[in-house]
Amino acid sequence: MPFHRYRPAHARVSLSEPVSRDWPSARIERAPLWVPVDLRDGNQALAEPMGTDRKRRLFDLQVAMGFKEIEVAYPSASRTDFDFVRHLAGAVARGEVPDDVTVVVFTPARRDLIERTFAAVEGLPRVVVHLYAATAPVWRDVVLGKGRGELRAMVEDAARLMVKLGGDREGLRFQFSPEVFNLTEPDFVLELCGAVTELWDACPQRPVTLNLPATVEVATPNVYADQIEYMHRHLDRRESVILSVHPHNDRGTGVACAELAVLAGAQRVEGCLFGNGERTGNVDLVTLALNLYTQGVDPMVDFSDIDAVRRTVEHCNRLPVHPRHPYGGELVHTAFSGTHQDAISKGMAHHALRARELGVAESEAPWDVPYLPVDPADLGQTYEAVIRVNSQSGKGGVAHLLRAHRGVDLPRELRAEFARVVQAATDDSGGEADPASLWELFEAAYVTPGAAGEQVRLASWRVDRDPSGEYRFVGALSVHERAGDYEGTGPGPVSAFTRALAAAGVEVAVLDFVEHATGPGAEASVAAYVKCRVGERVVWGAGLAPATVTAAVSAVLAAVNRGL
Amino acid sequence: MPFHRYRPAHARVSLSEPVSRDWPSARIERAPLWVPVDLRDGNQALAEPMGTDRKRRLFDLQVAMGFKEIEVAYPSASRTDFDFVRHLAGAVARGEVPDDVTVVVFTPARRDLIERTFAAVEGLPRVVVHLYAATAPVWRDVVLGKGRGELRAMVEDAARLMVKLGGDREGLRFQFSPEVFNLTEPDFVLELCGAVTELWDACPQRPVTLNLPATVEVATPNVYADQIEYMHRHLDRRESVILSVHPHNDRGTGVACAELAVLAGAQRVEGCLFGNGERTGNVDLVTLALNLYTQGVDPMVDFSDIDAVRRTVEHCNRLPVHPRHPYGGELVHTAFSGTHQDAISKGMAHHALRARELGVAESEAPWDVPYLPVDPADLGQTYEAVIRVNSQSGKGGVAHLLRAHRGVDLPRELRAEFARVVQAATDDSGGEADPASLWELFEAAYVTPGAAGEQVRLASWRVDRDPSGEYRFVGALSVHERAGDYEGTGPGPVSAFTRALAAAGVEVAVLDFVEHATGPGAEASVAAYVKCRVGERVVWGAGLAPATVTAAVSAVLAAVNRGL
Repeated sequence: MPFHRYRPAHARVSLSEPVSRDWPSARIERAPLWVPVDLRDGNQALAEPMGTDRKRRLFDLQVAMGFKEIEVAYPSASRTDFDFVRHLAGAVARGEVPDDVTVVVFTPARRDLIERTFAAVEGLPRVVVHLYAATAPVWRDVVLGKGRGELRAMVEDAARLMVKLGGDREGLRFQFSPEVFNLTEPDFVLELCGAVTELWDACPQRPVTLNLPATVEVATPNVYADQIEYMHRHLDRRESVILSVHPHNDRGTGVACAELAVLAGAQRVEGCLFGNGERTGNVDLVTLALNLYTQGVDPMVDFSDIDAVRRTVEHCNRLPVHPRHPYGGELVHTAFSGTHQDAISKGMAHHALRARELGVAESEAPWDVPYLPVDPADLGQTYEAVIRVNSQSGKGGVAHLLRAHRGVDLPRELRAEFARVVQAATDDSGGEADPASLWELFEAAYVTPGAAGEQVRLASWRVDRDPSGEYRFVGALSVHERAGDYEGTGPGPVSAFTRALAAAGVEVAVLDFVEHATGPGAEASVAAYVKCRVGERVVWGAGLAPATVTAAVSAVLAAVNRGL
Repeated sequence: MPFHRYRPAHARVSLSEPVSRDWPSARIERAPLWVPVDLRDGNQALAEPMGTDRKRRLFDLQVAMGFKEIEVAYPSASRTDFDFVRHLAGAVARGEVPDDVTVVVFTPARRDLIERTFAAVEGLPRVVVHLYAATAPVWRDVVLGKGRGELRAMVEDAARLMVKLGGDREGLRFQFSPEVFNLTEPDFVLELCGAVTELWDACPQRPVTLNLPATVEVATPNVYADQIEYMHRHLDRRESVILSVHPHNDRGTGVACAELAVLAGAQRVEGCLFGNGERTGNVDLVTLALNLYTQGVDPMVDFSDIDAVRRTVEHCNRLPVHPRHPYGGELVHTAFSGTHQDAISKGMAHHALRARELGVAESEAPWDVPYLPVDPADLGQTYEAVIRVNSQSGKGGVAHLLRAHRGVDLPRELRAEFARVVQAATDDSGGEADPASLWELFEAAYVTPGAAGEQVRLASWRVDRDPSGEYRFVGALSVHERAGDYEGTGPGPVSAFTRALAAAGVEVAVLDFVEHATGPGAEASVAAYVKCRVGERVVWGAGLAPATVTAAVSAVLAAVNRGL
């Protein structure tokens, strides 16, 4: 491939590189201001842009999640966008939008379009007008045909017009984006930013947002962090500036760019839910916020029902969220591999124990379960999808599914044995074994082995306890098709049954025996597991029944039929 | 949300932090060794794991792309995986695998499973046996129930067994992964790594691969880079070690972790094509390799037909690649927004010009087109999907599509006018306008305005040039349903036609006129555009016809009907 056609970012523009940098030693200890731009930048990238209905639905979701500043439109670009801003002005007037939510609108540096933008926001009480101009060399030379001086004059003219149209309006603030910041000469960025903060008279009471986009990702994310730290150190009126970033994701490092930029001094991050946006998308605010959450930092937005967020976003964008998308994808809490399942299973048990020790609910106890960076329950999800079984899985996962879906808790030794049965079946099928098919496999192997062709059958039977405490079992047994009534006595019903079997010519010794209820309450079934020596062989059998004795007798009978 | 349940990575394990670090100033100037693990780690995460057929298809793709080391199985975990390694041994014996390709197999530190692993690789001439053990505190305490000393003994026993089973076999090398490296105490990692490099007698002629996974991402990617740089500086026998990384993507920063780790000293990266893998996946090797490519570094693997790679990977994994996945997603080269389209259109024209100036093909000229970080043609893709039109689009995109799909190159003024027509239509429909519907809109507006209800119709007509050079137009015109034959003369056929129209009572003046062939060769149609004053109005009309005169007459007639 002709890699020589491309040049590294360092060769395309003289990037600032701080002699020393502080960001690699910093930590993020509080959330920046998140500003979703789904309704503008994200929307511009959709094959079917949102109309007012879908825009309003997404806006309401973002408000409900707790976003406080939301970019809603590029009002001069289309009638749809203009109309939506007017719709929102009506909604605000009707009290449908909380008082602490500010809307942002986007405009290029052109007189007629700025005027139309101001017409759109008429009557909105809290609004940021966001001016942008492409400032990088290739854009200046090839697209705009303007030198640095001409571009600066264009930006200044626009900035002055904005002051004229709205400078003294209460609740109005200004934002400027030097588009393609990451490919623009740092001194030119400082020059433009200094010009607008002066013209707009940035002050701590009315700060100006300076948004520095990685419009097209062109370098490893540490380079963007260096660029942001340089700006953080050198911008005029720094205390009157909200330093904002707007990463895209062309190199798949948008999240990293945003995080390292925050380490480097950024206070505000623009992005989209699940990373929609032109080409590879804008940085994903879901991932960013939940990355803070799983580090113990308040994300300042609510993802306690992430599936609902996802459904609304998918509806509005008409684009899917990938099954492996961090936090929101349908497979992100799922483990198929045996070692992972075993670790998760032990980790969940340990978590439950720790919660009891601490005297708190499991949903409140510190989370430290292997392979699960977040408790699915915190995102409003169940544990159902965490463990799924196929040929890559092991005893932990198989046991977990039987326990979760059937209430049967196999003895340790039986787990390992049954896992091999499952693996043989999934190796053959090549597919997944869901809880229902796992149960079918278990029944066929341990509960009704041989089924119709059983070698030993038990028709009617009864068991009595005499006053001395001895049990007497009487039943109609057919062994190899020869039927007869047999009886036996013993210290318990199981041993009485084995004596009856012996009388019928079937030698069986019970080596291990476990029984448990499969659910809460007196109505629950009982599961019994017995390990028997039948002739030369040692085998497990299982039985399920409403009563303990019945389950145990069934289990012994199943073991006998497996062993013969 | 209960963020207090989570603790930052720094609070969970004492991470190494270099007093000084070199990686933030480093640059990646050559590709690390890429090792795809789709057939092992990726495969373990699929609902339907691959059988031998799908595994072989993906293996052959990876070989064809140029990967030199490929992890192919976890042979002791399932019969399917064991059988695939035996299948590959046969393929190698039959000469179906190039001599410079090494396969890797994965094993836990258990005697019986190591023995089965060696049985699987019998006869393979170039193989790496990859031993892993989970080393992080939670895994030791909750999953394995072993202290540091016991775990070390387990790893040493396994390492010794590997030497015993294959230590002097030619073409065999060893790899060790302290699983969950990124949550393990650095001194313990050094202790374990030192133990295995000693037992395996690592030397430059037979280096040992030490693979340091971010098994579950838990911190910003700079933390992983610090961890890797620390290991790079402190590992025993560094010159005899291939330092490898294996990032996952739980925080959406897998690509960044890999890149920063390479800056920090990693020489080898394990990942999957398009980032398949447990939960959120392994790091994506497609993105990593092409990120180097777009920085002018030879990626050492071939993506010149990325769609074919994508199709095979989707077939084998039965998982989709997201439309916005870097490089491979179907939308990543697409621009809907007007400003982007305009910039791309100008950038492409500039690129063509530059190629001519340099005297090279466009496919060889340096690439520097706004908003397109890579030339789609380098990935075997067309420019078809680059520009798509909806209500967010502008004149650049509309003009581009008409030119690309119909060969019609609208005059500048007409572009802006028609773009407004398109925007009104897409504002109404809320959807995309594909090239066919754009053409319908253009025809309806400029070529056959009014259609059946035209006010001025032209039936049969002819035009002659007399020897003096004057043109005479004669035609059957119906104006407002009154029909008649009219004629006119002029210095050209168009002016002769306008005189005939004047004779019929229709005043029209041609203000501008452009005509061009819509394709190469003598058979191509001609497109004509005229700007006319019709009464008080100034309007454009267009005509398409096999001959220049016919196209021009049609264009004038269309303008007249638009103007009346």
